[in-house]
Amino acid sequence: MTTPADIGLIGLAVMGQNLVLNMADHGFNVAVYNRTTAHMEEWLAKVRKEEPSSDRVTGYAELRDFVAAIKKPRMIVILVKAGKPVDQVVEQLLPLVEKGDIIIDGGNSQWTDTIRREKDLAARGINFVGSGVSGGEEGARFGPSLMPGGSQEAWKSLKPVWEAIAAKVDAKTGKPLEGSAPGKPVTGGVSCTTHIGPDGAGHYVKMVHNGIEYGDMQMICEAYYLLKNLLGLTPPQMSKVFQGWNGGDLDSFLIQITADILQQKDPQNPRKFFVDVVLDAAGQKGTGKWTSVSALDMGTPAPTIAEAVFARCLSAIKEERVAASKLLKGPKFNFRGARQPLVEAIRDALYCSKICSYAQGFQLMRQAQAEYHWKLNFGEIAMIWRGGCIIRARFLQKIKDAYDRNPDLANLLLDPYFKKQIQKAEANWRKVVALAAQAGVAAPAFMSALAYYDGYRSAVLPANLLQGQRDYFGAHTYERVDAPRGRFFHVDWPDPQRPQLPI
Amino acid sequence: MTTPADIGLIGLAVMGQNLVLNMADHGFNVAVYNRTTAHMEEWLAKVRKEEPSSDRVTGYAELRDFVAAIKKPRMIVILVKAGKPVDQVVEQLLPLVEKGDIIIDGGNSQWTDTIRREKDLAARGINFVGSGVSGGEEGARFGPSLMPGGSQEAWKSLKPVWEAIAAKVDAKTGKPLEGSAPGKPVTGGVSCTTHIGPDGAGHYVKMVHNGIEYGDMQMICEAYYLLKNLLGLTPPQMSKVFQGWNGGDLDSFLIQITADILQQKDPQNPRKFFVDVVLDAAGQKGTGKWTSVSALDMGTPAPTIAEAVFARCLSAIKEERVAASKLLKGPKFNFRGARQPLVEAIRDALYCSKICSYAQGFQLMRQAQAEYHWKLNFGEIAMIWRGGCIIRARFLQKIKDAYDRNPDLANLLLDPYFKKQIQKAEANWRKVVALAAQAGVAAPAFMSALAYYDGYRSAVLPANLLQGQRDYFGAHTYERVDAPRGRFFHVDWPDPQRPQLPI
Repeated sequence: MTTPADIGLIGLAVMGQNLVLNMADHGFNVAVYNRTTAHMEEWLAKVRKEEPSSDRVTGYAELRDFVAAIKKPRMIVILVKAGKPVDQVVEQLLPLVEKGDIIIDGGNSQWTDTIRREKDLAARGINFVGSGVSGGEEGARFGPSLMPGGSQEAWKSLKPVWEAIAAKVDAKTGKPLEGSAPGKPVTGGVSCTTHIGPDGAGHYVKMVHNGIEYGDMQMICEAYYLLKNLLGLTPPQMSKVFQGWNGGDLDSFLIQITADILQQKDPQNPRKFFVDVVLDAAGQKGTGKWTSVSALDMGTPAPTIAEAVFARCLSAIKEERVAASKLLKGPKFNFRGARQPLVEAIRDALYCSKICSYAQGFQLMRQAQAEYHWKLNFGEIAMIWRGGCIIRARFLQKIKDAYDRNPDLANLLLDPYFKKQIQKAEANWRKVVALAAQAGVAAPAFMSALAYYDGYRSAVLPANLLQGQRDYFGAHTYERVDAPRGRFFHVDWPDPQRPQLPI
Repeated sequence: MTTPADIGLIGLAVMGQNLVLNMADHGFNVAVYNRTTAHMEEWLAKVRKEEPSSDRVTGYAELRDFVAAIKKPRMIVILVKAGKPVDQVVEQLLPLVEKGDIIIDGGNSQWTDTIRREKDLAARGINFVGSGVSGGEEGARFGPSLMPGGSQEAWKSLKPVWEAIAAKVDAKTGKPLEGSAPGKPVTGGVSCTTHIGPDGAGHYVKMVHNGIEYGDMQMICEAYYLLKNLLGLTPPQMSKVFQGWNGGDLDSFLIQITADILQQKDPQNPRKFFVDVVLDAAGQKGTGKWTSVSALDMGTPAPTIAEAVFARCLSAIKEERVAASKLLKGPKFNFRGARQPLVEAIRDALYCSKICSYAQGFQLMRQAQAEYHWKLNFGEIAMIWRGGCIIRARFLQKIKDAYDRNPDLANLLLDPYFKKQIQKAEANWRKVVALAAQAGVAAPAFMSALAYYDGYRSAVLPANLLQGQRDYFGAHTYERVDAPRGRFFHVDWPDPQRPQLPI
């Protein structure tokens, strides 16, 4: 191929493969390179037959030739495992690229690594962009949600490609435009990408996206668990319930696939339901953990996301739980009452918990913005999550609306729309949490979200007693309700003369 | 002083001062050094007048002279701020100490730093001991709980000092022996110290102690909050309640000081109660956060400790909560029913939650033991926490008994004693969580502990659905209930021929 490539991509695992085909479908010539050349050639041979746009893709066995084939300023996307592999590829590229070239890391890198890399490379005149890519394999192929960080200059070059390949949503309704097929991407609509902010901002926002995804998945699981254990619904019955929910406020990719999964049969035995043969031991890749750790590090409450991570940890010790279940019997509980109202109540509990979990995620981004001196546009972030990514949902349009109404909104819970939504559903939420407690059905995220909601709306929490304890045993001092913040007081507790009540 | 010192101590903030006096009371000659000599001299002048054993303490203006004054192999305790200051002091000591000397870090250092320092110093023939010191100022002065890591060789030298100055408990009942006074330490009893394990083990265990302390404090606050908001009890009424609880299973330092704090008057206005004038914005120093982060990193569930940390974070945004309280009104809730049974129920909720929180802390240590190849003795750890430290409690004797019965106990919840205790109190615990949910009183730790309990005793959690979701959007594969662990399956979800139910 004599035409220079518009962009290059290194790392041909599934995500990389699909992103390349997506770019080719949108008319970009793509140079590709893979550490194992044989793997690349095999894949190229395959797509030559199957993919209409694959003639726009050229493979190179030598990194030098790959780099030389790309138009300047070069854009090179890296899609390798997060961590050392990214540094290694960057190291290999450095002698070959030139000032002004742009290296884009599309993996799930930790934002602190991205900050470091951006700084190192900027000092050498190379642009480094850490870009979140969400949507799994399907998203990468037909339109992911893309969250690029890095400099404005780099974004100027990257923008046409990123906007072309990102998922599209209807400008008015915010609904994802579907129907992309190989060689025939959907056109029109609004692209699910925007420049998130400098250095690590893109990867940070992608990480919070994943943290929110952990929360969503856990909360859906809790709804399923309550439908199953309180009401005894079967998977197909539950599938119908989730399909129904998907027609309302909860309309989202994860609810839809849940309905889909619940009507799946066991591939090995069509007389069994798929969910009933799947082992209840969850895996995790780390981004939910990172989100929780970041929340802890910055001192910003994100308990519901952390509970979702811990719920996966608890699920993983299956054998220990099975042993414990034989010793620790729960309450005998028979639900009496009408079924449909409880189904509705569980829906409401899921919806309210979801709002709280998103409130926590957005709080976290607000805190990170202050910590790292970014300027994030929360409405735009909600907007680019409406399509392409795993948490895509009708709901995100409402979050965008909330930040359009008030870009400085302190917490989603304070937005009039969400306030009203919770108030409508609150009684049911409380009822479900109370029932779960009484019935012995674990619902950590529903409970944590409720405690967060009640804590957040409490003018007075019991931390006054806690400060008293800290002053008592550690002389940590306390502030007073009737003195300005920042003035610290201390009681001489061992003093027998201190003014105690005669009780 | 011509007699060489038995031990040296660097860093004369309150903890260091009190540890020195404690050592002197036990007959040890102590050399002291402080970065600011004037501060040291001022303190020495003061204690010469007030402290009977202070003639055993000698101050040195030069680090060289300080080191030279100590018996070989030298033991030098460092009590400076965790982090860089520890490295700086070690750096300054290195040219002055000799092979076989022992440097003891008594601060709240992160265990990973301690592992690094121990390794670095061992290579130079110097023993480094990271030792947890718990008990606040009072503990340091009259008997702390001491959790030393490091080598066996170092422990041999340190043991006589550490055993002498540590808190003492009655060998039979496990009750702390009280009544120490300046110059007159209590004698007899069992010392609250033991060699925890190599390198960072001591600091790790101390960190978990603090994480558990965060949990205890938060749960006591929740009990107080429920007594106040559901029953409208006044501080002196609550003080009586806590005094009563202190006579039973909950007997502990933190319950006792809570009763004490609740009967304290406002020092500025004796017509007010102290707790009512303290601002409900909690501070924190980091060890609770580290515990939660370590749990997340190792994938071990410690949600209740994390909720306690997040509750402090939420308390800290006081102004935001006050604003939110005006917008987000909770349910109207009037408790009807007899008071005393609800007081009992809140006690039971606190007790059960506490058991779960300790179960999480001990699980964490068990996991860390595997991670770092330590061999921890959980019974001994419980034993040395019976006196001196902030979480000292009658309860810890029961934990010691549990590990005496079964040193390989997988989880405290499985011990027959704790199993029975929870089963007795469980119905009340569930009732209180349900009430808190219905009444809109935030009780994150009670709720999280209950969800942990119900999750742990569930043979089947809803993570099967979660694994289905992960397989659906990310091809993450799943395991089957009817196949051996470690065999992974995948459904070809986009395939229209996959076996779905006709619904």
